[in-house]
Amino acid sequence: MRREGEIALPFDPATRAEAGITFVGRIRSPWGKGTAPKNLRLARETGQGARVELDPVYAPALTGLRVGQAIQLLYWVDRGERDLLIQNPHHDRGIKGTFALRSPVRPNPIALGTVVITSIDMEAGVLGIDATDAWDGTPVLDIKPWFDSVDVPPGWHPER
Amino acid sequence: MRREGEIALPFDPATRAEAGITFVGRIRSPWGKGTAPKNLRLARETGQGARVELDPVYAPALTGLRVGQAIQLLYWVDRGERDLLIQNPHHDRGIKGTFALRSPVRPNPIALGTVVITSIDMEAGVLGIDATDAWDGTPVLDIKPWFDSVDVPPGWHPER
Repeated sequence: MRREGEIALPFDPATRAEAGITFVGRIRSPWGKGTAPKNLRLARETGQGARVELDPVYAPALTGLRVGQAIQLLYWVDRGERDLLIQNPHHDRGIKGTFALRSPVRPNPIALGTVVITSIDMEAGVLGIDATDAWDGTPVLDIKPWFDSVDVPPGWHPER
Repeated sequence: MRREGEIALPFDPATRAEAGITFVGRIRSPWGKGTAPKNLRLARETGQGARVELDPVYAPALTGLRVGQAIQLLYWVDRGERDLLIQNPHHDRGIKGTFALRSPVRPNPIALGTVVITSIDMEAGVLGIDATDAWDGTPVLDIKPWFDSVDVPPGWHPER
C-alpha cells in the first residue's frame, strides 16, 4: 500500500535482473521485524553486538583483517518492495527520493553498515561486530576494509 | 592465471546466483582499462570529475539530494573473475584475503565510492560527481546519502 505522495516505478526491478549475486553468509543479530533499530547509530546505542557467519568456504577470505578494524558490511535487505521512487517515511518529514534515503525499499536492496570487528574466528569464518541494524538471518554480500582515505568525503571533519 | 600464493574457490560465485540486481544507470568517466586510477583517492588527485547517468525512469528518485552533498555510489565491477579467496595484488606487499582488499575481484563485485555531488539535472537524471575510479560505462546499482552518524566508525578522528 502506498502512503500519501509516494510514487512507484511502472515495473518491479526484481523482474529486470541483469546480474546475479550470491550470499556469502548471514548476519546473526538480536533483531527481527518490529524490534530492529531504525539505523546503525541507534543500533550502536543499544550496546548489543552481532556476528557475521560466513559460509565456511569463504573463511580464508578474512585473512588480513584484525580486531578493532572498521569494515564496510554489505547485506541484502529485500523485503519484497523494490519499486518506490518517492517515499514518505514515517520518521522523516516530507517526501524524498529513494536515492536520498537509506530505506531498504530501493531498486537494489543492498544495505551498507560501517562496523567494527570485535572478534575473528578464522576457522569457523565468523566475525564479531560492534553493532548492526540488520534482522537476524540477513544475507551478507560483501565485507570490505574501511579506509579513511576513500570512505570519508574530502574536507569532512567531525564537529568538535 | 593465478599469481603466487593465490587461492580460489572450488566454484564460480556467478553460477550460484541467489538474487538478481538491476542496473539503474551508468557511470561516465574518462577512464578505461589501463588508464583508470587504482583507487578513489588517486582518482580525486587527477582533478577529473565524472557523471552518473541514470536510466531516465529513475530520475525522480534523486529528489532531495543537493549539490555539495556526499553520496555512497554503488557500482558493478564484474570483470569475469569472482572466485579468488586469497589475492596477491601487484601494488601491495604480501597476500591478503579478498575481504581485506578493495579489489574488484570478489564474490559479489560491488564497488563503493564516497563522492561529492557537483551538479544535479533532475529532468535528465544526471549527477555530476567530483571523482570516480570506475571505467566509463560501469553499471550503477545504487545511490545513498552519506551520513557521518553511520558512515564513520565510532571514535574515528582525522589526523591533525
